[in-house]
Amino acid sequence: MKYCFGVDIGGTSVKMGLFQTDGTLADKWEIATRTEKEGIMILPDIKASLEQKTEQHGIARKNIIGIGADIPAPVLEDGIIRMTPNLGWTYKEAKRELSEMTGMPVMIANDANAAALGEMWRGAARGHKNMMMVTIGTGVGCGVIADGRILTGAHGAAGEIGHLHMNEAETDVCGCGNRGCLEQYASATGMVRVAAKLLESSGEPSSLRSGPVSAKAILDGVKAGDALSRRAADISFRYLATAIADAAAIADPEICVIGGGVSKAGQIVLDYIGKYYRERAFMPDKDLAFRLAELGNDAGIYGSAKLILDGIK
Amino acid sequence: MKYCFGVDIGGTSVKMGLFQTDGTLADKWEIATRTEKEGIMILPDIKASLEQKTEQHGIARKNIIGIGADIPAPVLEDGIIRMTPNLGWTYKEAKRELSEMTGMPVMIANDANAAALGEMWRGAARGHKNMMMVTIGTGVGCGVIADGRILTGAHGAAGEIGHLHMNEAETDVCGCGNRGCLEQYASATGMVRVAAKLLESSGEPSSLRSGPVSAKAILDGVKAGDALSRRAADISFRYLATAIADAAAIADPEICVIGGGVSKAGQIVLDYIGKYYRERAFMPDKDLAFRLAELGNDAGIYGSAKLILDGIK
Repeated sequence: MKYCFGVDIGGTSVKMGLFQTDGTLADKWEIATRTEKEGIMILPDIKASLEQKTEQHGIARKNIIGIGADIPAPVLEDGIIRMTPNLGWTYKEAKRELSEMTGMPVMIANDANAAALGEMWRGAARGHKNMMMVTIGTGVGCGVIADGRILTGAHGAAGEIGHLHMNEAETDVCGCGNRGCLEQYASATGMVRVAAKLLESSGEPSSLRSGPVSAKAILDGVKAGDALSRRAADISFRYLATAIADAAAIADPEICVIGGGVSKAGQIVLDYIGKYYRERAFMPDKDLAFRLAELGNDAGIYGSAKLILDGIK
Repeated sequence: MKYCFGVDIGGTSVKMGLFQTDGTLADKWEIATRTEKEGIMILPDIKASLEQKTEQHGIARKNIIGIGADIPAPVLEDGIIRMTPNLGWTYKEAKRELSEMTGMPVMIANDANAAALGEMWRGAARGHKNMMMVTIGTGVGCGVIADGRILTGAHGAAGEIGHLHMNEAETDVCGCGNRGCLEQYASATGMVRVAAKLLESSGEPSSLRSGPVSAKAILDGVKAGDALSRRAADISFRYLATAIADAAAIADPEICVIGGGVSKAGQIVLDYIGKYYRERAFMPDKDLAFRLAELGNDAGIYGSAKLILDGIK
């Protein structure tokens, strides 16, 4: 039996998985991410943890084919990272360093891209080669898989759907410095912003007035028939569906997986996106299928494992 | 010396090139496209012409490694075409048919994609692996190259920048059935439409009132300081630059080649696009370089030749 590791390096914890090369997850665990001192301990901590698990499972070193890892930042060719504020890293040759440390082949990708690859390999997009995964959380993330491979781009910044330009008339500034980006409407925080503006500009009663406004409260309001919640969700999801239609016109996927905190509201999210998507999509892309993500927080370790399996094939 | 053929199949003519495998164009010529009878003679005509040239140049059959070809329609996996109105073809297994006819390996791509590949190989984007080519003609076409390979997509319809959704308020319908597509503003016909609306809604004098309005007349007006031409060009190129910024957020290229009839106006087109692009682009993509296409009508034969060279490597 051959094995590989999938490592999902986040700002708070590092999730790790030991995989059989057929894709079976044999073990998973996590350790804290020590971001102090420019994150100098992160890779050594990972190395120590992987070695301990290898020993614990009694796996011979020669039966481990390599390590795939993802990080929350763009990854340049050769696994070089320019800057990862969440990890404390500045310029970092993470692939080379981890490979030299462990003596194993290493592949590194951006976390949104790895999650998409994971969902394609063992999640909601199994059996597809052209797909995108949109993650609706604090921001709107996206990974694109084209012909079975991650679409990386020249700066490791492909798939940045959150910063498509949606609204010429926007006056508020996005975190990126532009105005009218998708994230300003369709992330969890963007949804709250949209609803708060509606609450402010109208005196109409709403279930949202009785507590803190959140993406969940808005979607609960929709389910309960609250008119203002419905107007807010209409605005947010119409922008999101339009952006997905634009991304699909460029990347032409056959399936779009929706993940992230907001997707936990379930089918209602797919219904909203699907409805507005059909209105907006370019004809050849109209049959794009939408599915909820299946791997949850494990998407990163699955995708990272797949990355190294593909990389050394 | 080894050779290959690049074949650019258009609705009026089939352009063909005989290439040395180092990329040197040894000969080029064209024949008429016989689209009658569902285009049944197109592939046999190509076969006959290629054989004649092979003989004329005294090249041994075994020294020709294969044929690359492009067509004006989406190409599915395995070189299958669902429908090509411009050629008269309905469902067509063009790759298999031409390969069986000639006894040679054949690769087929969409024409916009092949042109992009050609410009990357021997044109304005030499030395780059992540690029896009935007062709401003009757429509707005686009091909995307990611990590040196054509971004094809699930339906062979990737890179459809002409149908990004640009304007929520548009009331006119695009040829695709949607409203507010880029093509409605930034194609040659879209530019005329924008200028005509300005002419109609204002009584102001303009050089455009003295003759038929065309993209060329608008850009000539800009150069001559005509205020209305400048307003029209501002609108068209701002939409175009915004769409390129959106496409770049998804595909993350490092260089964008501008081709097609409108690009013949030269530097002024790059200046317009570059200016609005910098305002709109997401930060990691701001340094995207813009260049005018260099291969003109030969981009397709170059790209097709590259396709077969890559395909049988």
